Amino acid sequence: MNGQYVQLAEIDIDPAQLASYTAAVKEHIETALRVEPGVQVLYAVAAKDNPAHITVFEIYRDIDAYKAHLEAPHFKKYKSTVEPMVKALKLIPVSPVMLGSNPR
Amino acid sequence: MNGQYVQLAEIDIDPAQLASYTAAVKEHIETALRVEPGVQVLYAVAAKDNPAHITVFEIYRDIDAYKAHLEAPHFKKYKSTVEPMVKALKLIPVSPVMLGSNPR
Repeated sequence: MNGQYVQLAEIDIDPAQLASYTAAVKEHIETALRVEPGVQVLYAVAAKDNPAHITVFEIYRDIDAYKAHLEAPHFKKYKSTVEPMVKALKLIPVSPVMLGSNPR
Repeated sequence: MNGQYVQLAEIDIDPAQLASYTAAVKEHIETALRVEPGVQVLYAVAAKDNPAHITVFEIYRDIDAYKAHLEAPHFKKYKSTVEPMVKALKLIPVSPVMLGSNPR
């Protein structure tokens, strides 16, 4: 598990544009996972008590995979598409304590 | 993907007890994944700029699997072990927008 790059993104969306944002982030996640082998996990969730508050839990193979992701055309398209929908964005770099999952 | 129960736990640990907490949460995650098929993901991470701030991203097969988890002996042991180490705990129920992952 050494070397994985992990971060949380906390994103506040304009509630009036939430449906458009949701469509854009789903398309982006689908594309990134399909095209970029270094993208391991993109879990996007909405707070039940505030659906316009989105958290994305992100795991990349390593820092280079993350840097490559930032330069990918589909990421740049996503960023420009959602820019007018995003009221606030906070990126939180984190260190894994334990990343546990069962096969599904 | 219907029916999965997903939540974030945000936990502030007493910095003086962080090593003990880390050991306890690793043991707990290892046990829960091994013993409970309804526990699908337990990703525990520490903020790089504040290692005593832990976030756990949790996915259960469904609400019943989550309820069973809360009653499991290893969960109760974990809770009582870490209770004196935890300064604050916030549970954030969330709705999946998209849970994307690549096989590793």
